[in-house]
Amino acid sequence: MSGSSFGTLYRVSTFGESHCAGVGSVVDGCPPGLSLSEADIQTQLTRRRPGQSKVNTPRDEKDQVKILSGVENGKTLGTPIGLFVANEDQRPKDYGEMNQIPRPSHADFTYQEKYGIRASSGGGRSSARETIGRVAAGAIAEKWLHETYGVDIVAWVSACGDLEAGEVDASRITRDQVDANIIRCPDQTVADHMIEFVTSLREEGDSVGGVLNCVVRNCPIGLGEPVFDKLEAKLAQAMLSIPATKGFEIGSGFAGARMRGSVHNDPFTQKDGRLGTTTNHSGGIQGGISNGEPIEFRIAIKPPATISRAQPTATFSGEETVLEAKGRHDPFVVNRAVPIVETMTALVLMDMALMQRSRP
Amino acid sequence: MSGSSFGTLYRVSTFGESHCAGVGSVVDGCPPGLSLSEADIQTQLTRRRPGQSKVNTPRDEKDQVKILSGVENGKTLGTPIGLFVANEDQRPKDYGEMNQIPRPSHADFTYQEKYGIRASSGGGRSSARETIGRVAAGAIAEKWLHETYGVDIVAWVSACGDLEAGEVDASRITRDQVDANIIRCPDQTVADHMIEFVTSLREEGDSVGGVLNCVVRNCPIGLGEPVFDKLEAKLAQAMLSIPATKGFEIGSGFAGARMRGSVHNDPFTQKDGRLGTTTNHSGGIQGGISNGEPIEFRIAIKPPATISRAQPTATFSGEETVLEAKGRHDPFVVNRAVPIVETMTALVLMDMALMQRSRP
Amino acid sequence: MSGSSFGTLYRVSTFGESHCAGVGSVVDGCPPGLSLSEADIQTQLTRRRPGQSKVNTPRDEKDQVKILSGVENGKTLGTPIGLFVANEDQRPKDYGEMNQIPRPSHADFTYQEKYGIRASSGGGRSSARETIGRVAAGAIAEKWLHETYGVDIVAWVSACGDLEAGEVDASRITRDQVDANIIRCPDQTVADHMIEFVTSLREEGDSVGGVLNCVVRNCPIGLGEPVFDKLEAKLAQAMLSIPATKGFEIGSGFAGARMRGSVHNDPFTQKDGRLGTTTNHSGGIQGGISNGEPIEFRIAIKPPATISRAQPTATFSGEETVLEAKGRHDPFVVNRAVPIVETMTALVLMDMALMQRSRP
Amino acid sequence: MSGSSFGTLYRVSTFGESHCAGVGSVVDGCPPGLSLSEADIQTQLTRRRPGQSKVNTPRDEKDQVKILSGVENGKTLGTPIGLFVANEDQRPKDYGEMNQIPRPSHADFTYQEKYGIRASSGGGRSSARETIGRVAAGAIAEKWLHETYGVDIVAWVSACGDLEAGEVDASRITRDQVDANIIRCPDQTVADHMIEFVTSLREEGDSVGGVLNCVVRNCPIGLGEPVFDKLEAKLAQAMLSIPATKGFEIGSGFAGARMRGSVHNDPFTQKDGRLGTTTNHSGGIQGGISNGEPIEFRIAIKPPATISRAQPTATFSGEETVLEAKGRHDPFVVNRAVPIVETMTALVLMDMALMQRSRP
Repeated sequence: MSGSSFGTLYRVSTFGESHCAGVGSVVDGCPPGLSLSEADIQTQLTRRRPGQSKVNTPRDEKDQVKILSGVENGKTLGTPIGLFVANEDQRPKDYGEMNQIPRPSHADFTYQEKYGIRASSGGGRSSARETIGRVAAGAIAEKWLHETYGVDIVAWVSACGDLEAGEVDASRITRDQVDANIIRCPDQTVADHMIEFVTSLREEGDSVGGVLNCVVRNCPIGLGEPVFDKLEAKLAQAMLSIPATKGFEIGSGFAGARMRGSVHNDPFTQKDGRLGTTTNHSGGIQGGISNGEPIEFRIAIKPPATISRAQPTATFSGEETVLEAKGRHDPFVVNRAVPIVETMTALVLMDMALMQRSRP
Repeated sequence: MSGSSFGTLYRVSTFGESHCAGVGSVVDGCPPGLSLSEADIQTQLTRRRPGQSKVNTPRDEKDQVKILSGVENGKTLGTPIGLFVANEDQRPKDYGEMNQIPRPSHADFTYQEKYGIRASSGGGRSSARETIGRVAAGAIAEKWLHETYGVDIVAWVSACGDLEAGEVDASRITRDQVDANIIRCPDQTVADHMIEFVTSLREEGDSVGGVLNCVVRNCPIGLGEPVFDKLEAKLAQAMLSIPATKGFEIGSGFAGARMRGSVHNDPFTQKDGRLGTTTNHSGGIQGGISNGEPIEFRIAIKPPATISRAQPTATFSGEETVLEAKGRHDPFVVNRAVPIVETMTALVLMDMALMQRSRP
Repeated sequence: MSGSSFGTLYRVSTFGESHCAGVGSVVDGCPPGLSLSEADIQTQLTRRRPGQSKVNTPRDEKDQVKILSGVENGKTLGTPIGLFVANEDQRPKDYGEMNQIPRPSHADFTYQEKYGIRASSGGGRSSARETIGRVAAGAIAEKWLHETYGVDIVAWVSACGDLEAGEVDASRITRDQVDANIIRCPDQTVADHMIEFVTSLREEGDSVGGVLNCVVRNCPIGLGEPVFDKLEAKLAQAMLSIPATKGFEIGSGFAGARMRGSVHNDPFTQKDGRLGTTTNHSGGIQGGISNGEPIEFRIAIKPPATISRAQPTATFSGEETVLEAKGRHDPFVVNRAVPIVETMTALVLMDMALMQRSRP
Repeated sequence: MSGSSFGTLYRVSTFGESHCAGVGSVVDGCPPGLSLSEADIQTQLTRRRPGQSKVNTPRDEKDQVKILSGVENGKTLGTPIGLFVANEDQRPKDYGEMNQIPRPSHADFTYQEKYGIRASSGGGRSSARETIGRVAAGAIAEKWLHETYGVDIVAWVSACGDLEAGEVDASRITRDQVDANIIRCPDQTVADHMIEFVTSLREEGDSVGGVLNCVVRNCPIGLGEPVFDKLEAKLAQAMLSIPATKGFEIGSGFAGARMRGSVHNDPFTQKDGRLGTTTNHSGGIQGGISNGEPIEFRIAIKPPATISRAQPTATFSGEETVLEAKGRHDPFVVNRAVPIVETMTALVLMDMALMQRSRP
């Protein structure tokens, strides 16, 4: 349980820092006989790649995934799938001079304290680059879930700082609509303001946080393992394991805390030949188990800690100093988190789906 | 991973429904040599007990815990600790007539769909009674954490519907202060309004949600296992596994999503002989690892689903009906969740502390 | 992984020492809808009970199991099943005077070194009494495996010291035949010699070891999870976790190490409408996966360490002494291990069967 | 638990078939700050490599390991260590024509039945090549165990068919002595006979099994987690997870089953400033916990299933046929299993050592 594995029946174990040979993962438990190519996985990796637009950092990492094992003649064998993306751009020199100064709200200090050593440059395992292994593993899960149950998972940017998107129809939103603009906010008017705002932040050397919404449609009824592995509990863990996340809410969320039971309760009704609910304050999960309604949740993401404005802080030895970060930085990363959120969701659902199938 | 176990090195496995012989848990991995009596565990169990006040339901369950194993002459042996609380009040008749109607926003429907069977009365494992096993196990963890590191964990009610407590000093708040009123809100003026409000809801047959805040003081630096078992990720899972929870936020939370990096970043400073931060938007965790600052988080809890007002809904077979629940119900349960949140927090920290001790 | 849990999808967590309130287990993952009564479980518990005959120790423990949870109206709910057997006969005084002398080949010394504390009397968790929780959990698994697949598991005593049973037809042997004599050796002539031998050992205050054989018939093809959880690997773990076991062999076992490939290989042949093998040196498992042939294995059990003959040894502090154990002791326990071996086998198969069902 | 991971605190997840891009593993939980180079790992990989002598198959695979992550400037970071060995020699054509015939005592049949698909050529995950990932991970564990506690693990061939080595002094035997001849039997006279025998088998197109002995010296007292993860139970699992193993015995093993308690019990005595035993029938483990004496065990290995002699058998569809395998094959592989046994032993001890360190 040293932290780099997730899932029980569909188990992903990730590895890799920003500046070693590469990053990747091993997936144990992928069902045999699934059609799978590197291209199937690459789509989501490419979506999370930096350097896609003026909003994000202008690095040009290729992030081409290679399947190392577990697939033959385009079909999964049911054996572990090794996934690997080489690190092409290592540039450790960018960070070298900051070694005596733990970057504020980064993990330099805590990694050093925890392990007594840390990667000499960059964020090591706390870097967003670590997520490549999960995204690749989750992309496989997405494919199986979609082919098996028609599961659709779509995330989008619903807020950038104080700028909030208008209502988005979670029952219809598609990834194509989300990707229609570079900030991945389906409300184009607000998206334009967001892009303008982020561009101005880049000039100021500052950054800003935001909120992601995610919906899962066509999730089979019955997923989630009460009581500690309730579906929303595992989703919460999955989302809070993504770098920079600060909050998670399902269905009515914090707003639900203000509501009365007579309003919040979701009445049952006959719906498309099954029992459904007329409202969905539950967010598609009741008693920790999916109920067939869309699963809807939101994730709060803090502003990137790396900014180019000068920051008064202290060195590891406690001396006051001022940190001025150089090099590339992203003023806003919530749009890049979209595929990470989607694939982490897939990892949770995949594990739960296999678990439920084991139940006679 | 069938859902009823939590933790790896300090592992609790719970059992029990509302209307069987009893509820409890087995704790595997408790350090040997800890002084432990049933009284040590009973305190938190009594705090979570219903029937404590006019705010909560007037059941009078005793919930006396019995240690079945693992302790001899008042000391833990390092072997599994069996914990058991008999069910005294079973009264299955209360629910009998509702068997054809899945209660809205309860787990009747999803349990039936998932397992093909469900407890014939009451909420089964989705009932709050299930939490007894965890609270007992967590109370042991609290004791060890406090004796070993001086860890203090305090939760309180910060909102009841729209009523919000004023600022509470998380660096000093105590359980005695929290328990000073029956609604467990340390802002006495607001607490009085809350009590009045909840009393009126009881008369109306309605219910309301609320928000809990929790702080952990004196948490050792270095707890949390990147990347999937980051400290906030495991806390999020733990909190969302508590019945009726809808959201979790750590540190700045959703408010942090609106902030700029230049404001959100927590600058380092020399503090009491160690490196600390001048602000704590991180909520005591950076890169998934505790940094020595207070760990602060909030949990959203929805209104109890059981209300006595009539609810239009449908039967299992899809026929429209009106449900009128009889018998006891709680209009507000956030105050009873206080010890559950504290002990679940202890379960997470305990597991992480033992994990970090294993690291040479 | 503190050691007292076994299995992933059908997970048993045991608790209890010889002289606390009782012993038992929690089973998480039992399929819902299984008919289950305490009587179903009691049969195997009674078979492992001491005091059944002059061969074993004359204690009269009742070992009546109580189902604490997870079953309602005679059906499993799919929720955790709590199982409990009260300790009726505690008599800690029997062992009191030996506290300064670690009993040779017992676990007194190693428990004290590992935990820094140990149960003040008796073997604590190293006592055979610990196995009650597993036997109860395994008895449920047996029932499900038999009802679902027709799985039959039969173990018997094949050797007592140098006395070896003649050939037993593993394809037909039944538990009734095994229980036909008190030493559970289906070769009645050899059984008579064994009983005579064990009786003489009791008079001499000595003990002897033996060998158990076990066969599983009608195991579904495809169970076992390569590579670390190969079926024979988990069986080996399960068997070596039983107190006093010293060896495990599957199929040809150590004899197979002497054979040539041309003799050892099991040729395939058409058999009852499926592909089978003409010989079974593989013991029903190939590549870690069951192949449909009977699974056959053997377990070596050492002589009980508790004997009444005087033993020169040393105290905890290293002083030479002579230990003369008083009170009850069993000169031979291999017959009592029969239900333990059978139920541990069921625990392995159950977990593997659920695992394989999860695979689409 | 899909089978390709082992360990909890030092967790290895392996991947790779015989004929994909390569094989390897991810190690999660390696202590930070350990000096580590590829050369440290390569030694054991090279020892397990085929093609080392006329006794083994004349393939010339290089099996050069590459560290993908987790190590910087020659020190482990405490983060996952990715390990990879490319497959250089794939030659799938060797096996192509046998696709309709499940090879006797191979895993072709069971993999096909379990997964509904199998690697089109070679043994897939059941091939000995799979062990590369574990050997690499175990070599790191060996290094840490040796540097931390002085642990020495030495395995050797003690039998080849009916040829048995004379007594080997387990308290002194070294790897250099074992490697003094190609068959890795420290009794040179017997080794010469073994080599002669194996050479003759190659000419006959046949194969033979054998026995490995293994000793662990300087194992710390207190390792092993009662009750299911007793040290001998995990060793048994580890050994039976190695391809072609058929049996495991610890200490007195099957011979112990014939002994009397008065002879088998290991009396305590003062020894080098600690309590030790005068005999070691327990094999260094009592109550599932290491007692400070050498841990001694033996493993039975069956004859390799691939032989070039014609074998009557059946096709997948049940038709009688005769299989004549072509290409390379090893008549004896027990000598190549030496490093696999040693490193699997290290994986077990490493996990148990970290577990025990977590215990306050």
